[in-house]
Amino acid sequence: MRIAFQGAPGAYSEMAAQRAWPAVETVPCEQFEDVFASVAEGRTSHGLLPIENSIGGSIHRNYDLLLEQDLPIVAETELQVVHHLAALPGTELSQIRRVCSHPQALAQCEQFLRKLPNVEIVATYDTAGSAQLIRDQKLTDTAAIASARAAEIFGLSVLQAAIQDYRDNITRFLLIARDPQALGTADKTSVVFALPNAPGALFKALSVFALRDIDMTKLESRPMRGRPWEYLFYVDLAAGRTDVRCGRALTHLAESAKWVKTLGSYARWNEASMKTLTAEAPVDVSAV
Amino acid sequence: MRIAFQGAPGAYSEMAAQRAWPAVETVPCEQFEDVFASVAEGRTSHGLLPIENSIGGSIHRNYDLLLEQDLPIVAETELQVVHHLAALPGTELSQIRRVCSHPQALAQCEQFLRKLPNVEIVATYDTAGSAQLIRDQKLTDTAAIASARAAEIFGLSVLQAAIQDYRDNITRFLLIARDPQALGTADKTSVVFALPNAPGALFKALSVFALRDIDMTKLESRPMRGRPWEYLFYVDLAAGRTDVRCGRALTHLAESAKWVKTLGSYARWNEASMKTLTAEAPVDVSAV
Repeated sequence: MRIAFQGAPGAYSEMAAQRAWPAVETVPCEQFEDVFASVAEGRTSHGLLPIENSIGGSIHRNYDLLLEQDLPIVAETELQVVHHLAALPGTELSQIRRVCSHPQALAQCEQFLRKLPNVEIVATYDTAGSAQLIRDQKLTDTAAIASARAAEIFGLSVLQAAIQDYRDNITRFLLIARDPQALGTADKTSVVFALPNAPGALFKALSVFALRDIDMTKLESRPMRGRPWEYLFYVDLAAGRTDVRCGRALTHLAESAKWVKTLGSYARWNEASMKTLTAEAPVDVSAV
Repeated sequence: MRIAFQGAPGAYSEMAAQRAWPAVETVPCEQFEDVFASVAEGRTSHGLLPIENSIGGSIHRNYDLLLEQDLPIVAETELQVVHHLAALPGTELSQIRRVCSHPQALAQCEQFLRKLPNVEIVATYDTAGSAQLIRDQKLTDTAAIASARAAEIFGLSVLQAAIQDYRDNITRFLLIARDPQALGTADKTSVVFALPNAPGALFKALSVFALRDIDMTKLESRPMRGRPWEYLFYVDLAAGRTDVRCGRALTHLAESAKWVKTLGSYARWNEASMKTLTAEAPVDVSAV
């Protein structure tokens, strides 16, 4: 199992991959498009994409790519995001004149950044890449916002830990592959559909799930590109695609939707089950 | 009528205000919070906030502020966003070493920016403010991504026009006030609600509108801050708050929702009606 991810080593996507699937090899890519290309061309077996953040909402770019490309979702995982301000060892906070990171990370630390006087904020393509830049160019007046892992990899010291504005900052990631076979038992299905612009169209569409007692774990409308204020709908269903209710509901949905696309069916992420899978078996001392 | 907006003169918010309400005085504010404070404290009669972009989706920060503060929405308007690359007169594109703008604008021009070699991308707090910075500091190696109006105000030349990656880039803005009285006849209502985490809860909630033939023009679920993956729902209804169906539907909704908040009731934006209101009366030549 080789997982492509966007960003430099130490990126949150890589941390999420290594935490969920500890034995995997991870392959850095420059852009999200490159993650898809890596999987499509067989250079990696899988790709991991951030899809939603508990503060910032959905990452629309990756929904667009999932729609454009035919690479199914086969698993999901989550990661608590903790941002650190990191700089070359020996640098003091008062010496920092520039802070660089991904725009999303900068936005998540906005309150912290506004309190730093005379500091220029520089947007980069990824968090870990900013740490790498500081190391490579020996920038003594610059700090990066990145993960503890990225700071460690690129030999930076943490000037200030946990600088994000909100504590409960969790990112959900989707694992894509060429083969639609889920890792584990699929009990969740992600679909996207477009509806005619008619009164009650959305209610009718959602009734196909409600009438079959299929719960929705996410529902989002999004303006369609090129057709302002016509909406696409992203829905996550609490049922596997092979569940007969799910199959019937999607057939029923196709009767009224302009089009429906299933993005994948996979096992719902569960922190407890992950721990069971990765922790070493406990030693039963009483039996010794 | 004095309208507060976030950003420097020439910001898209100011352009939207001046286009929809040509006679108004506009008041720049540094942050969105300042726009709310300006209205709450009576320094301005109104505030204009971007709430949704046809490419980037909802601006969650402003939804959060609408929930926290008790300032109702009284109108909406839309603006086509056209980004330009602007620099001091006489500067050539080949001399540019830095491009600065708001992270959202940078993201909307990503394809264009990736083609510029050896250019540093700098995130700032607003588009027009970046143009101002270049003028104030006489930066000959820096360009801003901003509106044509911002370039004009700060004496910059447009190096390259319409550099956004997608043509249909439209932002929707909400006008807030202390007095909930809509400008014009309210035929649209924005509400936010939270639901118990139970199967079918969303379908039940939406049925209160469908059963009364009230159409939804927007529906979005959003993770609740501090409670990851519990969702808030933002809904725009195609009915005024004083419409008896709307009143009954919201009373009905309150039976099952944890809480419901009406953000405001206002006239749906309509390009044609705006033109009628602002264009000069046509001269009927046949009658002369």
